[in-house]
Amino acid sequence: MSTFPLPPGSTIGILGGGQLGRMLALAAARLGFDVVILDPEENSPAGRVAARQIVGAYDDRWSLKRLAEVCDVVTYEFENVPAATVAELTAQGVLVAPGAKALAAAQDRVVEKTFLAEIGVPTVAFAAVETADDLAAAVARIGAPSLLKTRREGYDGKGQAWVQRPADAPASFDRIGQRPAILEAPADFVRELSVIAARGRDGEIACYPLSDNHHEGGVLRRTSAPAKVSSATRDQAEAIAARILTALEYVGVIGVELFELAGGKLLVNEFAPRVHNTGHWTQDGCEVDQFEQHIRAVAGWPLGPTAPRAHVEMTNLLGLEVDAWAKLAAEPETRIHLYGKGEARPGRKMGHVNRLRGLKD
Amino acid sequence: MSTFPLPPGSTIGILGGGQLGRMLALAAARLGFDVVILDPEENSPAGRVAARQIVGAYDDRWSLKRLAEVCDVVTYEFENVPAATVAELTAQGVLVAPGAKALAAAQDRVVEKTFLAEIGVPTVAFAAVETADDLAAAVARIGAPSLLKTRREGYDGKGQAWVQRPADAPASFDRIGQRPAILEAPADFVRELSVIAARGRDGEIACYPLSDNHHEGGVLRRTSAPAKVSSATRDQAEAIAARILTALEYVGVIGVELFELAGGKLLVNEFAPRVHNTGHWTQDGCEVDQFEQHIRAVAGWPLGPTAPRAHVEMTNLLGLEVDAWAKLAAEPETRIHLYGKGEARPGRKMGHVNRLRGLKD
Repeated sequence: MSTFPLPPGSTIGILGGGQLGRMLALAAARLGFDVVILDPEENSPAGRVAARQIVGAYDDRWSLKRLAEVCDVVTYEFENVPAATVAELTAQGVLVAPGAKALAAAQDRVVEKTFLAEIGVPTVAFAAVETADDLAAAVARIGAPSLLKTRREGYDGKGQAWVQRPADAPASFDRIGQRPAILEAPADFVRELSVIAARGRDGEIACYPLSDNHHEGGVLRRTSAPAKVSSATRDQAEAIAARILTALEYVGVIGVELFELAGGKLLVNEFAPRVHNTGHWTQDGCEVDQFEQHIRAVAGWPLGPTAPRAHVEMTNLLGLEVDAWAKLAAEPETRIHLYGKGEARPGRKMGHVNRLRGLKD
Repeated sequence: MSTFPLPPGSTIGILGGGQLGRMLALAAARLGFDVVILDPEENSPAGRVAARQIVGAYDDRWSLKRLAEVCDVVTYEFENVPAATVAELTAQGVLVAPGAKALAAAQDRVVEKTFLAEIGVPTVAFAAVETADDLAAAVARIGAPSLLKTRREGYDGKGQAWVQRPADAPASFDRIGQRPAILEAPADFVRELSVIAARGRDGEIACYPLSDNHHEGGVLRRTSAPAKVSSATRDQAEAIAARILTALEYVGVIGVELFELAGGKLLVNEFAPRVHNTGHWTQDGCEVDQFEQHIRAVAGWPLGPTAPRAHVEMTNLLGLEVDAWAKLAAEPETRIHLYGKGEARPGRKMGHVNRLRGLKD
């Protein structure tokens, strides 16, 4: 096992070679670390800025063995890392951060909401659904309209079906393939916020200012940060993040998605045990961004400051929107972050821009 | 030949795999470019954050052919790129920026100072020296003490000898190996400043605020920026930079080292046709740093803003000073940049820190 803090020159493994892995790799390089990417696709966006890429499946034992041999610690850019992968890496003697507990909670919506309820963090009402009978009972308890989601996978609105009236329940269950599911009461929210927070190996916690997020078609379109919120709202969000991080004995950056209700109360929608799209504004809005913060945490370094230095409006560049790069490059207030992806398929996240304003604007 | 501006996904070649190449590669990645490094050493600092490294000598035709095949443009991190290398790459159909004219001037102190004199940029008095007789005549004209330097190579105080009295001249000439040289009058300066400037493919010029530089033993120790200077001094420096950039039909970032005399007049000490150690403060002091600016210029993108957002004190970490990383990581105002070099040999540049203060502090 490695000893922490890891000195510069140590090697950090990252599971996943997409844009989050790429931006983590760039941050690690600034601090003098080497990075090795594991990704099934050759020539991944992150692999092209890393010392090395191992091409293999996330559950391929031989690839994991090679990764463990060269890495002092391993982290990941996506929450669907198989539990067996973490077990295998740990058996090979390399720590994985964030740990198995965070992954288990983040991979299953019922486990996640049950965990949140247990630690006293508010969410919408929910019920586990395995069968059509479960669903009927859940609708009777929670009411309709309500939202049926598969327990596992499903993102950006996929694997979901509304139950508008109790009689619709069987059809909705069919629409998600009768898979194990969760039924959730709809949140009557006025805003979608998120808090990006970090916990170090020594238990230190740091939260960034809140993000105010706008989704379109289930995909993040825009984040404005620091969000205009009362100090009570900010305190509430930070207390929620701290409670989750502590209960999970978490190491790294987490993204916690929040619903703000009319009265100001916050509910947790879900959390992602990784750097988060709604934290991209920190690249140009804070001295230490979420990517360096995550690397600091997993390497056992002290966390960096999270105070804002500018107001940022982050906009995702989806699909062919990236073709506007020349126009964007000419905007003096606009910082451009592109992911090195080849084909600009519709809706694919190709990059983002951070537009800066002074904090007092 | 490539057409400019280069779209994201294009490939930028960099000659040299040291820290400057590494920080250029990281900046290029943020903008969605791929980078290929050419360096004779395997596993170079820059190669470990690039899509690919070609291991070969800078004048190896086969390596240059491979580089030209995969790159849309080529740049470099050091000024001693052989002229034949640029000619070979150009013959292979790939543009090199900054161009041959800038390299030729920067590689030979007599050519450099003659060029500066021709375009009306002030320097110390100087004379070319080929023989002992030349030197005697030069000392008679310029006086003593004066400084004898080899025309080519020599950096950080190497390849230099003082001529304290006319009678010392032959011994000084021996000390620099009787190589072709330049004799320079000493500059009676009060401060060493520098200006980092850029010129785009369309001729646009942008200057960063001046850097105030402190050398020890001929090596840069510390830069403070923006330097406290009068607007007249700043105007003088910007006019000098613009004159050099325009005369060289330059594309990219240049570092111009200046002597500030007691009366406020600036002399050019020398210039480096590349990103510059005295510009590292821009990484945390400006929205677009010198590395992104250089990539923007060579890719034919519009230049970014150069206004300061913070006051920065940059300190080089030489040799074992890098072992203080844990202490430095705990300083909230300190941003750490490490180069991924293995052995911390005495005086070797291992990294730097940028310490931030508000602009009004």
